[in-house]
Amino acid sequence: MKAITIPEPGDPDALVPADVPMPAPAAGEVLVDVAAAGVNRADVMQRLGKYPPPAGEPEYPGLEVSGTVRELGAGVDGWSVGDEVCGLLAGGGYAEQVAVPAGQLLPVPRGVSLEQAAALPEVACTVWSNVFLTANLQPGETLLVHGGSSGIGTMAIQLAREVGAHVAVTAGTAEKLKVCRELGAEVLINYKEQDFVEELSAATGGHGADVILDNMGATYLDRNVSALAASGRLVIIGMQGGRKGELDIGKLLAKRGAVIATSLRARPREEKATIVAAVREHVWPLVESGRVRPVVHEAFPLARAADAHRALDADHVGKILLTT
Amino acid sequence: MKAITIPEPGDPDALVPADVPMPAPAAGEVLVDVAAAGVNRADVMQRLGKYPPPAGEPEYPGLEVSGTVRELGAGVDGWSVGDEVCGLLAGGGYAEQVAVPAGQLLPVPRGVSLEQAAALPEVACTVWSNVFLTANLQPGETLLVHGGSSGIGTMAIQLAREVGAHVAVTAGTAEKLKVCRELGAEVLINYKEQDFVEELSAATGGHGADVILDNMGATYLDRNVSALAASGRLVIIGMQGGRKGELDIGKLLAKRGAVIATSLRARPREEKATIVAAVREHVWPLVESGRVRPVVHEAFPLARAADAHRALDADHVGKILLTT
Repeated sequence: MKAITIPEPGDPDALVPADVPMPAPAAGEVLVDVAAAGVNRADVMQRLGKYPPPAGEPEYPGLEVSGTVRELGAGVDGWSVGDEVCGLLAGGGYAEQVAVPAGQLLPVPRGVSLEQAAALPEVACTVWSNVFLTANLQPGETLLVHGGSSGIGTMAIQLAREVGAHVAVTAGTAEKLKVCRELGAEVLINYKEQDFVEELSAATGGHGADVILDNMGATYLDRNVSALAASGRLVIIGMQGGRKGELDIGKLLAKRGAVIATSLRARPREEKATIVAAVREHVWPLVESGRVRPVVHEAFPLARAADAHRALDADHVGKILLTT
Repeated sequence: MKAITIPEPGDPDALVPADVPMPAPAAGEVLVDVAAAGVNRADVMQRLGKYPPPAGEPEYPGLEVSGTVRELGAGVDGWSVGDEVCGLLAGGGYAEQVAVPAGQLLPVPRGVSLEQAAALPEVACTVWSNVFLTANLQPGETLLVHGGSSGIGTMAIQLAREVGAHVAVTAGTAEKLKVCRELGAEVLINYKEQDFVEELSAATGGHGADVILDNMGATYLDRNVSALAASGRLVIIGMQGGRKGELDIGKLLAKRGAVIATSLRARPREEKATIVAAVREHVWPLVESGRVRPVVHEAFPLARAADAHRALDADHVGKILLTT
């Protein structure tokens, strides 16, 4: 099969299509003929050599795919050859076939194309696990989403809106903020021109954010703590602004706040299966009813993975996909 | 009535006994004739001028008392004049009388003297709310308690042991560690001679602490994150080692960990009442059965509050009390 390999870490051209052996599904796994794979920031980190796959997982990049079930490993119930599925991976999605743990598979939601379904697993599982399971966002609370126009951001806005939370976002252009508003964000902050702590405070009558979903890490740490409401929860899922920052514990303590840093990829398979099951229960009905939709910026052929990575670094809204 | 006032912030002699007006119980409050008051680290901060009482709360120090109900404010159910009680305060405990919100009162547990009961509210509510309600310590998990021989520490060890958790402690002398062991701690670390990260790792086969209860803040922040297990929760309730520290978000993210900083004093009265009710349900039966006990180092007469504060800064094990 064709897969995208990384012979040497580096810029987008480090992504090299190659002929590699097709994986065999182990017990409890399902072999999927890939229709499309989602492109994630973590794949860029892996391309740069900074985020190796967990032990025992496929070496090729790619944390989510959609496709058709080709073969069942031993002991798999609930899926059949030919089923259209999408799934969450620890790696290996940039390929024509990939073996997926059965507990990490989801059916393609009604009303979503097979290709577009590849845009859903990572964002739905990330947002549901972090914003709802971990940070326990409640109706009437305020969620601040940094990077509101990203794949994660566009899903976070929609799901928070659906549970009756208020949504504030940061983004870098008026065009991106417009998309966020159309998806349901009420407070729109251009981080290049405005201070998000001040803007959020003004927009919430001084309350701040009950939950913050952050992808910046160190550079935003102190301002995020400043933006938290009493009993607020800051969930850090990315470190695009660096990994080490000064934490003002006194400020956090006065708010009785929490700083949580998590990732999906390194979790044990059982935890991923629990999250996927929760997503199927809570998110899939919203997608199938048309209330929540995948937001896709552009799809590239698998062989053009390098261009897809370049697109991720350029202005875009929503997810970037690779198609086989 | 007599109360301890702080005319000017400063060293322990800043605590000055004075004749002041007796408080009147507002609606929903109970006036208590104080038998004893607990001495807490927060009182030292208040004496130093660094921790003013919340708006609307009594200006004198003292976050917990035991005593006898003297008068009921309007609308108070469930308590009668003459009841022996103890309670959690936002201030005012260093006095002969204090008005306590009814929801923050507890009965003196059977088997505990009226005086000793003053050693319970703050530690029981702090440990229950932070270790169990917030950090959700589970049977079989490992709790690391810094300052294991403090009032908070001695209660945390006992309650964690009772729910079936493993307990590791740090303390500064062999004598203090011996007390911790007698209360149920299994891993004993002398922080003056040993590195707690290494010792805990060695004692737990590399697992680390699922929950850490910390009173040091900045100076321990990085090592506490290092000591966390996967999905570990660091709960900071004191900043004796400073308030600003570097947080390695990458390290926290790799563990999917949480850093939570909280205090009891500034919480709204409804939250305190919820915590007190949980303590009455979960902790009081353990105290009444004799399985969990208040650990009291020494009691001083109220007029000698300065000596009590000096004792808090010297070597001690458990709580220090003031008696009227």
